[in-house]
Amino acid sequence: MEHLALLSRLARPNGEKIVLLVLDGVGDLVTGEQPRTALEAAATPHLDALAAGGSVGRIVPVTWGVTPGSGPGHLALFGYETRRDAYDIGRGVLEAMGLGLPLDSRTVAARANFATADGAGRLTDRRAGRIPTEENRRLCARLREALAGRSGPQVTIEPGEGHRFVLLLRGEGLSDAVADTDPQEVGVAPLAARATAPEGEAAAEIVRELVTAMEGVLADEPRANRVLLRGFSKPPHIPSVGELYGLTAGAFAGYPLYRGVAAACGMQVVECGKLPEELFARVGERWNDFDYLFLHLKQTDAAGEDGDLDAKVRVLEEVDAALPALAELRPDVLAVTGDHSTPAPMKAHSWHPVPVLISGRRAYVDPVARFDETAALGGHLGTFPSRHLMGLLLAHAGKLAKYGA
Amino acid sequence: MEHLALLSRLARPNGEKIVLLVLDGVGDLVTGEQPRTALEAAATPHLDALAAGGSVGRIVPVTWGVTPGSGPGHLALFGYETRRDAYDIGRGVLEAMGLGLPLDSRTVAARANFATADGAGRLTDRRAGRIPTEENRRLCARLREALAGRSGPQVTIEPGEGHRFVLLLRGEGLSDAVADTDPQEVGVAPLAARATAPEGEAAAEIVRELVTAMEGVLADEPRANRVLLRGFSKPPHIPSVGELYGLTAGAFAGYPLYRGVAAACGMQVVECGKLPEELFARVGERWNDFDYLFLHLKQTDAAGEDGDLDAKVRVLEEVDAALPALAELRPDVLAVTGDHSTPAPMKAHSWHPVPVLISGRRAYVDPVARFDETAALGGHLGTFPSRHLMGLLLAHAGKLAKYGA
Repeated sequence: MEHLALLSRLARPNGEKIVLLVLDGVGDLVTGEQPRTALEAAATPHLDALAAGGSVGRIVPVTWGVTPGSGPGHLALFGYETRRDAYDIGRGVLEAMGLGLPLDSRTVAARANFATADGAGRLTDRRAGRIPTEENRRLCARLREALAGRSGPQVTIEPGEGHRFVLLLRGEGLSDAVADTDPQEVGVAPLAARATAPEGEAAAEIVRELVTAMEGVLADEPRANRVLLRGFSKPPHIPSVGELYGLTAGAFAGYPLYRGVAAACGMQVVECGKLPEELFARVGERWNDFDYLFLHLKQTDAAGEDGDLDAKVRVLEEVDAALPALAELRPDVLAVTGDHSTPAPMKAHSWHPVPVLISGRRAYVDPVARFDETAALGGHLGTFPSRHLMGLLLAHAGKLAKYGA
Repeated sequence: MEHLALLSRLARPNGEKIVLLVLDGVGDLVTGEQPRTALEAAATPHLDALAAGGSVGRIVPVTWGVTPGSGPGHLALFGYETRRDAYDIGRGVLEAMGLGLPLDSRTVAARANFATADGAGRLTDRRAGRIPTEENRRLCARLREALAGRSGPQVTIEPGEGHRFVLLLRGEGLSDAVADTDPQEVGVAPLAARATAPEGEAAAEIVRELVTAMEGVLADEPRANRVLLRGFSKPPHIPSVGELYGLTAGAFAGYPLYRGVAAACGMQVVECGKLPEELFARVGERWNDFDYLFLHLKQTDAAGEDGDLDAKVRVLEEVDAALPALAELRPDVLAVTGDHSTPAPMKAHSWHPVPVLISGRRAYVDPVARFDETAALGGHLGTFPSRHLMGLLLAHAGKLAKYGA
């Protein structure tokens, strides 16, 4: 907390606006087979113009060598010291927050999938054939109806997208020390819920009963006849970006998980579309409501996870083409980076440093006039752990008082 | 303390001499209007020769995004983890130390200004027309005489330069939880001293009475008819550089504040002039007395605060011209940097990284042959928080044992 405590002490609100555009997983690799990264291969004249007029560098996601998931990756971008357990937000909580479900210290949340098992009870599809969201809604309604009036903790079942839903248990003294029931592979039965610590025994017992009841209801479903649970978790107390930095923060993200992280940090979540032009248009509509605007675009990460460099390049060129709508809002500080790399050759998140640019009138105009991995090596911002980006953004917006006399 | 504890454990004295030349606020900006920094614009053949024969890089003052005052900026250069409150030295204490006043745990120090108010009690000049030091001495003598024999805590009044003086209160149980009485603007009356925490009530009451008494004495003064107080503080315990690193340290600084920081870190303060050639000559005279010599030049910062790039360039060229006198002393390690940037376009301290060079026979001779912001980007030392400079200086002087087997 030292680092946060210092920023918090120095923070002073002013009228200036900070926009942080996160291109999820934007960082990529050069390998023997892939001679250029996505940013290097893409034609991005608007990003390059921002780089030319501002400062460029690289963030190390969370810390050297660590490949962050979306939660820690974003928490670090917001300045949190994510290596402290208090800021480890569980997957269940993140999903629940992303759906806007109210959580308190008596609530345990789990991320749930509908899945398919064969006659012998062995999983054949961990995502139930990626059923459409409408079918998910119908199934959740069936479950709710069947479980209504059950004794024990209050149960909430909320559909997400596709095959995903959220399960909340709310009651006095419930622990989240329960292991995932998702075996992460097909050909085996779902795992029975078990406690990961003695205090989780009661919750595990409740979950086992609940899964049995739910699968009884789903027995006649052709595809969605199983329920897989993971990420049992309770909401941590995270000081909000309002408390910490005096910011009035808005989150513009098309996907629940990112809305969830932002909500957990006290940002107001704004409903918006998933395409760059939709996102930037929505930012324009809500421009006067915030002095810190977190914008999240998922497509770069998805293309990286698919190992599709061409798709990643295409997404970047789409983002770039839409960028003038954002620049025309004239933010005092406009920063672009990613929460981590998702190199196409790895088809997964990675620890590799990610380019970052900061433009604004207090930025050092360094010689770098291109936004990509190689160019970023020569930039004024240097290479630094991603949790320090928030301090730099506040500084560039004149929002940090001098430290000491 | 982890970082300091490790250095302290490894430190071993030897006969080698380290010189650290701090050019206050030397770092500057490139902007649309200012295409070159002061270091880039200045002709500095001697600094460039040191760069060519040694290692170059950049320090991040204190931490990313944080704009340090002179206290935290220098403490970090001496290796202290300034983000810990224990090393937050108050302005009053710094000023008092700079004047060589003895402080103990029962002493509360405040930085004071003589100021001018009009007939209605509104401030018209927060610096009393920048009265000369002789007039300041006369005024302080008047105040001392008038206040002699007062009951309550022991009061010390010590003139500094120009309109500045130091007020010390010494007594059992006195707290420094008292807010500034300087409103930081003209057109309003000075603020009455008030406590910032319940334990400060007694001290605030004493300060209010004292200010009333002092302003009674000064009522007939044409200019200096008010007293403004700020930075109420008690001395922190700071382990000395002798204890920590086994150094016998001398501080060569023309201005009280920097002498104060150095004294707080256990350095012996050497009286000296403010010009580079005076400073370097004094270093030569005391060369045999120390193995760590901290040299401070203020003029670069002053020019930056004035927004006068040309003046900053001129100062740098003067420093450079005087530099051979320092180099001729043949320090084992000669390092040059700043405590922070003071970019002329900002007319204020800033968080931007500052070039640093280390020359000496253990330095990696990197390809950088120029001492400025852009050249430093390519240097061997890379970019690192300023508190790590001390470890590097000790290492370059052979003063750190191997860590572990």
